[in-house]
Amino acid sequence: MSQTFDTAQLHAPDTAIAPRLQHRIDRKTKPLGALGRLEALALQIGLIQQSETPVLNQPHIMVFAGDHGAARAGVSAYPQDVTWQMVENFLAGGAAINVFSRQMGLGLTVIDAGVNHDFGKRPGLIDAKIAPGTDNYLERPAMTPAQCEAALARGRQLAHALAANGCNCVGFGEMGIGNTAAASLLTHCLIGSRGGADLATVTGRGTGLDDAGLARKRALLAQALARGGQPDEPLALLAEYGGFEIAMMAGAMLGAAEKRMVLMIDGFIVTSALLVAHALNPAILPYCVFAHRSKEPGHTLQLQYLGVEPLMELDLRLGEGTGAALAYPLVQAAVGFLNEMASFESAGVSDQG
Amino acid sequence: MSQTFDTAQLHAPDTAIAPRLQHRIDRKTKPLGALGRLEALALQIGLIQQSETPVLNQPHIMVFAGDHGAARAGVSAYPQDVTWQMVENFLAGGAAINVFSRQMGLGLTVIDAGVNHDFGKRPGLIDAKIAPGTDNYLERPAMTPAQCEAALARGRQLAHALAANGCNCVGFGEMGIGNTAAASLLTHCLIGSRGGADLATVTGRGTGLDDAGLARKRALLAQALARGGQPDEPLALLAEYGGFEIAMMAGAMLGAAEKRMVLMIDGFIVTSALLVAHALNPAILPYCVFAHRSKEPGHTLQLQYLGVEPLMELDLRLGEGTGAALAYPLVQAAVGFLNEMASFESAGVSDQG
Repeated sequence: MSQTFDTAQLHAPDTAIAPRLQHRIDRKTKPLGALGRLEALALQIGLIQQSETPVLNQPHIMVFAGDHGAARAGVSAYPQDVTWQMVENFLAGGAAINVFSRQMGLGLTVIDAGVNHDFGKRPGLIDAKIAPGTDNYLERPAMTPAQCEAALARGRQLAHALAANGCNCVGFGEMGIGNTAAASLLTHCLIGSRGGADLATVTGRGTGLDDAGLARKRALLAQALARGGQPDEPLALLAEYGGFEIAMMAGAMLGAAEKRMVLMIDGFIVTSALLVAHALNPAILPYCVFAHRSKEPGHTLQLQYLGVEPLMELDLRLGEGTGAALAYPLVQAAVGFLNEMASFESAGVSDQG
Repeated sequence: MSQTFDTAQLHAPDTAIAPRLQHRIDRKTKPLGALGRLEALALQIGLIQQSETPVLNQPHIMVFAGDHGAARAGVSAYPQDVTWQMVENFLAGGAAINVFSRQMGLGLTVIDAGVNHDFGKRPGLIDAKIAPGTDNYLERPAMTPAQCEAALARGRQLAHALAANGCNCVGFGEMGIGNTAAASLLTHCLIGSRGGADLATVTGRGTGLDDAGLARKRALLAQALARGGQPDEPLALLAEYGGFEIAMMAGAMLGAAEKRMVLMIDGFIVTSALLVAHALNPAILPYCVFAHRSKEPGHTLQLQYLGVEPLMELDLRLGEGTGAALAYPLVQAAVGFLNEMASFESAGVSDQG
């Protein structure tokens, strides 16, 4: 099935420019390495853009929303209606991601990938609805292969359109009651118990389940696994347990990396979409900036599996792309010091004695 | 001697408003606690300002610069001239703190607290020079009691002037070749070996000493301690080993807290100034936001001693207030969500089922 979503256009950045970039970083008026993580970030973005003077244009957050059939079985602390209510909140500008996007100067687009609600035509909302929510993976696969493929293709197209509009830096966010459950199933199957990703370990409290709720969620997900198994093929797995917002985001990530954009990765659910994208083509990884470590326990396992360290650790567990938005100033600072700081030579500062 | 710097005007914020602030935070459209560290930060800033709708006005970075007599003995990897050369770099806008302050929308003032150089009258530079560098604490106390007192008083006055101009949020930074050595001595004496602050443990590589340089620095500081002892009284200690930039910053911190400003604390050297201020009056602590954990090993001991967790961990070891500037967007985000996010009620979003 992966043949139906061809990622052959995606390649890791050429690293030939790395020594020149590193030299430019090292000659800035600071002790060697003194800007820590920001130096590695500047190098990464220089490689992505194949430039010693990278620029960030029209940075943007894409929030993908979708409903999950399994939400009605009780995998979340909140009722399913909260998905569309929160989309309305996004459109009205009152959610955390609105506040942070405004503050950081980030554009914001909300994508209805499959919410169980009719929004009509609304400014700021892209109607990319595959269906009004996935099927309940406790009973049958969450989506058909055709739906999964359509979601991926639409996501790629949206990212390509963003790139065509001049954006070269995109953060990913999501909204979907029940989607930490889907992310847990995907993470368990992709990383496996050998990677420490036992189902119970990667199943967390989501939006705030109590102990009884968490036990119930774990039991339901074990039941889902007993029914659907652990498909080896990433798209079969995505169709089995995924959400439309997760699938469309995975497509958008691959599309954004194809266009050599900087990808700002949020928390547990966004990283589960990245795991799928990464399984399709690992060359996506060098385009990704990992914004933060979520409180959701499975996120740390995902980050370990990918061999990456996030920039921040703020105990966030909200989603919406809030961590990605909060990390954007650090991305900006990395590019800023590379372009704007004086060198020892230009400033007439004595180098280490 | 502490009678000469009276901190009786400084009181911790009243906490009576805390339950109302917490309720406001909890009713925002997000799961309880889902904004993690930002929620605690919003509560803290609300308490500092005694307001459910705090605002950040004219946020500013103050960079204090000074030279150290001991620098000529070889406690740093860089020659002493780098202090004034870097001040020139600040004035020309080419240093990291310039880049980050511009990006984050922060005002920037550089204060010559005691640089061994005649800058003349320069825009953007406040001449508060106590003397052209401290004395060499390997031979005699770094400053006289009168100099120490003058530096503190001038720092307080500068912070009060900033407050009078409408600023209510200030980040602290420093420049001074040799000042990690001074900070190590202050930290060792204030925290003590019982707090894990052995001299060797709190003496790090500063701007980048190699192993031989680090061993030499440790030996020199042990020699300084053998001469000057461990004065119990904070101002006597500050006079013995401190720098003018550290002393003036400690005074500015106390002055800023007296004016109920938010204090953004940078790395190891800035926190050593805070340790002195805190020894004079611990009520300063609730006004402080700890921006980041520096790579300098003594910083973690300082943070443990104060019982605080920094917001970020970016492996910075540059100083200048760069960590404080980089953390400002998080401070802004905390205030932003508190003021701008919708509540469950106002957005018509269903609460936890």
